[in-house]
Amino acid sequence: MIDQNSDAPFDDVRRLIAMMPGADAEAIEAVRARQAELTKPAGSLGRLEWLAEWLAGWQGRPQPSVARPLVAVFAGAHGVTAQGVSAFPDAVNRQMLANFAAGGAAINQICAAYGIGFKVFDLAVDMPTKDITQEAAMTEKDAVATMAFGMEAIAGGTDLLGVGEMGIGNTTIAAAIYAALYGGGAERWVGRGTGVDDAGLARKVAAVEAALARHADALSDPLAVLARLGGREIAAMAGAILAARIQRVPVVVDGYVATAAAAILHALDARAIDHCVFGHLSAEGAHREVLERFGKAPLLALGMRLGEGSGAALAMGLIKAAAGCHNGMATFAEAAVARSES
Amino acid sequence: MIDQNSDAPFDDVRRLIAMMPGADAEAIEAVRARQAELTKPAGSLGRLEWLAEWLAGWQGRPQPSVARPLVAVFAGAHGVTAQGVSAFPDAVNRQMLANFAAGGAAINQICAAYGIGFKVFDLAVDMPTKDITQEAAMTEKDAVATMAFGMEAIAGGTDLLGVGEMGIGNTTIAAAIYAALYGGGAERWVGRGTGVDDAGLARKVAAVEAALARHADALSDPLAVLARLGGREIAAMAGAILAARIQRVPVVVDGYVATAAAAILHALDARAIDHCVFGHLSAEGAHREVLERFGKAPLLALGMRLGEGSGAALAMGLIKAAAGCHNGMATFAEAAVARSES
Repeated sequence: MIDQNSDAPFDDVRRLIAMMPGADAEAIEAVRARQAELTKPAGSLGRLEWLAEWLAGWQGRPQPSVARPLVAVFAGAHGVTAQGVSAFPDAVNRQMLANFAAGGAAINQICAAYGIGFKVFDLAVDMPTKDITQEAAMTEKDAVATMAFGMEAIAGGTDLLGVGEMGIGNTTIAAAIYAALYGGGAERWVGRGTGVDDAGLARKVAAVEAALARHADALSDPLAVLARLGGREIAAMAGAILAARIQRVPVVVDGYVATAAAAILHALDARAIDHCVFGHLSAEGAHREVLERFGKAPLLALGMRLGEGSGAALAMGLIKAAAGCHNGMATFAEAAVARSES
Repeated sequence: MIDQNSDAPFDDVRRLIAMMPGADAEAIEAVRARQAELTKPAGSLGRLEWLAEWLAGWQGRPQPSVARPLVAVFAGAHGVTAQGVSAFPDAVNRQMLANFAAGGAAINQICAAYGIGFKVFDLAVDMPTKDITQEAAMTEKDAVATMAFGMEAIAGGTDLLGVGEMGIGNTTIAAAIYAALYGGGAERWVGRGTGVDDAGLARKVAAVEAALARHADALSDPLAVLARLGGREIAAMAGAILAARIQRVPVVVDGYVATAAAAILHALDARAIDHCVFGHLSAEGAHREVLERFGKAPLLALGMRLGEGSGAALAMGLIKAAAGCHNGMATFAEAAVARSES
């Protein structure tokens, strides 16, 4: 979808955004018509009913399906860890990739519980992006090429995509992106990530402030924000979310860091995340404020802040049940159940 | 556990409550020790970590399990429907039992999505309890016998019990119980149930007011509240929750009506629902206020108001994933992942 050798790589992204399909109004109408026939009081399944409409609308078919759900986890490494912003060493990136492959991480267990497929995308975790307090995380061409790589997430075929990440230092990157897009200063957006102490928190704030100052002249274009501040997993998630839109795959976005990828797209065009639901409210930083800016209500609020797509996968379990109710329930006529008298 | 022929049947219930076991502190400590070794930042799974502790503590073993989860749905019929309190006719009770048996209800689909077992208990839906605006819903002996029947829910063996209900008219019964236990007047507790219009809502309020006036001299004992106001499914759920406690089975309580069974037990002894989590915040009536009185935070808030154990079953999907994470994740040592440096 993207020509990585273009002289104006951002233009390709903008071209894709301009061609995004909208929701299928006929599919949504078909879901609503069937909901009214199912053996339950009208509206009594609450957000489960809305989720069935959402699935059908973005899948572009009257019968919503969650037959091939997939969680894609994008892993990146970050030069900003040189500023002492994480409680864990960079070596954990490679170690966690091995843990994902061996089935030992939280996300492996959650996907297994719900029958969700799982893929990991290694975005060169042994070659970190540059330290954003000093220079651009990556070139514009690299950023767009990484978005294109992220688009591969849906290449194997899926009807519901969960988007998550792993990368030591990336809550600092996400905070920098939010601060660049929304202003308000570094402290507003920075949280404790994997669990830094007060000194670590102060270093995170200082790193975000330094990055904002260093790149101040280049933060008016959301795609420039992405290239300057990084990271590769955020660029890849933005690509995955955009490709899913074009291929009519609804998306469940994970927490604080994954939402930064959605924020880049939202800043380019607020409609670009209409096909996304947000799996959970993260305990990290100012996630709530970002979701409020989007006008999006998260499905879950369980005080989680792990990443790895864990909150997205839990929400996909709910969405699977929502599709199951819609497709599997009997109608009043089929079950010979009397309707409401009012 | 209960002698249904006793001359003082309530005494048997009080005797059972007095012998309730507490949480197993050693099991909880074992879970906490293992959580600290799992490959994730400390505390990053939020309430999933608490759920693993809760399971182990009430199961009384260091390794929590969700291997045989079961949703038990209790169905009852209510003479108070003569007051025009429901949008659906009484015939729906029998029709919905058939729908459950045929696999056509929402709860069938949710249980199928998560591999949860499902049992229905028919509490004589063809023989409604008495109209509480006129007389006692049932005798004290009947109430206790129905509690004993509900205790059978766990007889087949389960390690996690979801408790739900179905019964045309039972949101009126639940509202009457809350009003009797907590005061504040009928309007505070009555909601639209399956969807009554304004006139139906007024009839519900009037029915609760009439019942409170009719039984005013007999509402100081929570078990008398249960017998006077009903219904059978609420008595049976109270029995199931109590039996689960004694047999060390953690319980997930469904919504507005199921919570009324917990409220009876809670009024007898606040510790009697310590082994319960509340699956979701119902959109019905003043469910939030009841949960706040218990000091319990629901796991989900999806605007649902169906009953049938649907909110409990969705929450049990989350709890299954929580147990999966706790039992299946690798430790830092097993996965050779570096620990936090702070």
